[in-house]
Amino acid sequence: MPNTRTELSQLGEFGLIDKIKNIVKVQNKDTVLGIGDDAAVVQIPDNHLLLLSTDMMVEGIHFDLAYMPLKHLGFKAVATNVSDIAAMNGVPTQITVSLALSNRFSVEAIEELYQGIATACEMYKLDLVGGDTTASPKGLVISVSILGSALPQHIVKRNTAQKGDIVCVTGDLGAAYLGLQILRRENEVFKANPQMQPQLEDKDYVVGRQLKPIARMDIVHELAEIGVVPTSMIDISDGLASELMHICTQSGVGVQIYENKLPLDNRTLDAIVELNLSSATCMLHGGEDYELLFTIKQSDYEKIKNNAEITTIGFITEKEKGMLFITQSEQIVPLKAQGWVHF
Amino acid sequence: MPNTRTELSQLGEFGLIDKIKNIVKVQNKDTVLGIGDDAAVVQIPDNHLLLLSTDMMVEGIHFDLAYMPLKHLGFKAVATNVSDIAAMNGVPTQITVSLALSNRFSVEAIEELYQGIATACEMYKLDLVGGDTTASPKGLVISVSILGSALPQHIVKRNTAQKGDIVCVTGDLGAAYLGLQILRRENEVFKANPQMQPQLEDKDYVVGRQLKPIARMDIVHELAEIGVVPTSMIDISDGLASELMHICTQSGVGVQIYENKLPLDNRTLDAIVELNLSSATCMLHGGEDYELLFTIKQSDYEKIKNNAEITTIGFITEKEKGMLFITQSEQIVPLKAQGWVHF
Repeated sequence: MPNTRTELSQLGEFGLIDKIKNIVKVQNKDTVLGIGDDAAVVQIPDNHLLLLSTDMMVEGIHFDLAYMPLKHLGFKAVATNVSDIAAMNGVPTQITVSLALSNRFSVEAIEELYQGIATACEMYKLDLVGGDTTASPKGLVISVSILGSALPQHIVKRNTAQKGDIVCVTGDLGAAYLGLQILRRENEVFKANPQMQPQLEDKDYVVGRQLKPIARMDIVHELAEIGVVPTSMIDISDGLASELMHICTQSGVGVQIYENKLPLDNRTLDAIVELNLSSATCMLHGGEDYELLFTIKQSDYEKIKNNAEITTIGFITEKEKGMLFITQSEQIVPLKAQGWVHF
Repeated sequence: MPNTRTELSQLGEFGLIDKIKNIVKVQNKDTVLGIGDDAAVVQIPDNHLLLLSTDMMVEGIHFDLAYMPLKHLGFKAVATNVSDIAAMNGVPTQITVSLALSNRFSVEAIEELYQGIATACEMYKLDLVGGDTTASPKGLVISVSILGSALPQHIVKRNTAQKGDIVCVTGDLGAAYLGLQILRRENEVFKANPQMQPQLEDKDYVVGRQLKPIARMDIVHELAEIGVVPTSMIDISDGLASELMHICTQSGVGVQIYENKLPLDNRTLDAIVELNLSSATCMLHGGEDYELLFTIKQSDYEKIKNNAEITTIGFITEKEKGMLFITQSEQIVPLKAQGWVHF
């Protein structure tokens, strides 16, 4: 942590904009005009459609600064937006970042936040082209909007899954949720006894998945290389079950997925056992993995079957068959969603 | 006010999205895909560049719901963003709206907010194409991002004013600030004695300018019709002096403006007299008028001189002459900015 504390009121709005410009450099040739005017100016590549998404994160709802370092928060706020562009099979290009923050945040704290934003911008080749910084009576709110683009024939929606399609998921499931449980447990221990050191040594993986989620742009590029356009796609922010139900409801289809096919990392399993949780529940309902969930035509199966980052977990059925989860013991249970429980 | 109160938790995220879709209809042919997927899909007209801006409004900082009806708040949140696109000489096309709100807001309250958003969308021919709705521990935060477009040769920046250019402002100045002072006064009276009726009868104009600001898209269209591209432009959100200083600083020029030329509505003047304020201060520093401040080449003067909505208030000088305000009594005083005093 820096030793000095500068108040935002000392620096002023334009001092802050200058600092931000120094942290996040424009690198994209299609960014015609970045921060500093009434609006940013952007060139969309020939024949491409524009993609636009936005997400808001609120202190005390989406994050707790007791265990979420500001750098990671900045990174995560960008990565979750990139994930929305990835879920359309598009490439992200520019972001805007708006902050509402109380005067407990120093200039140094805001710089840390922007360093995380800059790291994500470099990783995903994004330009920060605008935003707004304002006071808040209490707490921190971060609102990111993202632009991306894609050729029309590459854009993948949620409502276009077809009966017979194969259901695929990237990476592994449940880790971010376990990371959150571990961070919360250690925070409680710390609050009870500030002398205690957090027990995070062997929890790097799950904690990292919570604090620094990676949007799967690698998969978007790989699908383009192998010539696969998914028939539908969504990213997993609220948990597998909830996202699968969006695809099925919007596409007017049913689905069957199999517990014994769901990808689970051993380190996630260790944490599940340690916390005495159900692995099926964690994989189905643990949110914030930001993996991609998509469906492909059966004829594309050969192209993806050897990809270690893609797991086939079931198939699309007709709507009347419902949305079903086949357990390890071959019980058939209807899928349930648990998303959006903030209110 | 509606008599029923529905909790957001009863309705759920998708119930809310359905309600929003019914309130705000897609009308723009370039909106390929609106609300309901991971990202919106938008077509940019041939040869046009994309414009992108964003603004955040925070309860207790930018508005007080004691005197700001939610419908007006929704309208204003959109209009202020439209104003940013107008200030680039562009045409707005789509918005996203993100809300963080505490559980004191009912579904009916959120519908009122969206009715104001819908009114602004109809007025400016905008589509609402996405957003995010989330809980907040306290208060309301509304973050709007806006897309627009313009031909490259029509885009007007802040940093391109030239020595000899004429400085123009649209409409009149200071009214929104006076409206705010009146609303605050009546709110104090009401808090002291809730039986008192607010004294707003002859204050419609200034109060309306505070609650329902109009982005000057009419001027953007008119400038296009008469074939004038300003040499620089900005919208007046923080007050004339502050915005003029942005143009001068970023363009590397000086300016002289004349108090006796600044446009003041008689109803604003009445309020200034009633509240015993300085008219120069109100015109120079009263923010939120959302008028356009722009510079034109002298050769374009003939084209704008008979437009009742455009007033010429001074001219651009070389940088060394400074940024000067010539008072009614012909005193020369340096301009000072008062913007961004939230922190």
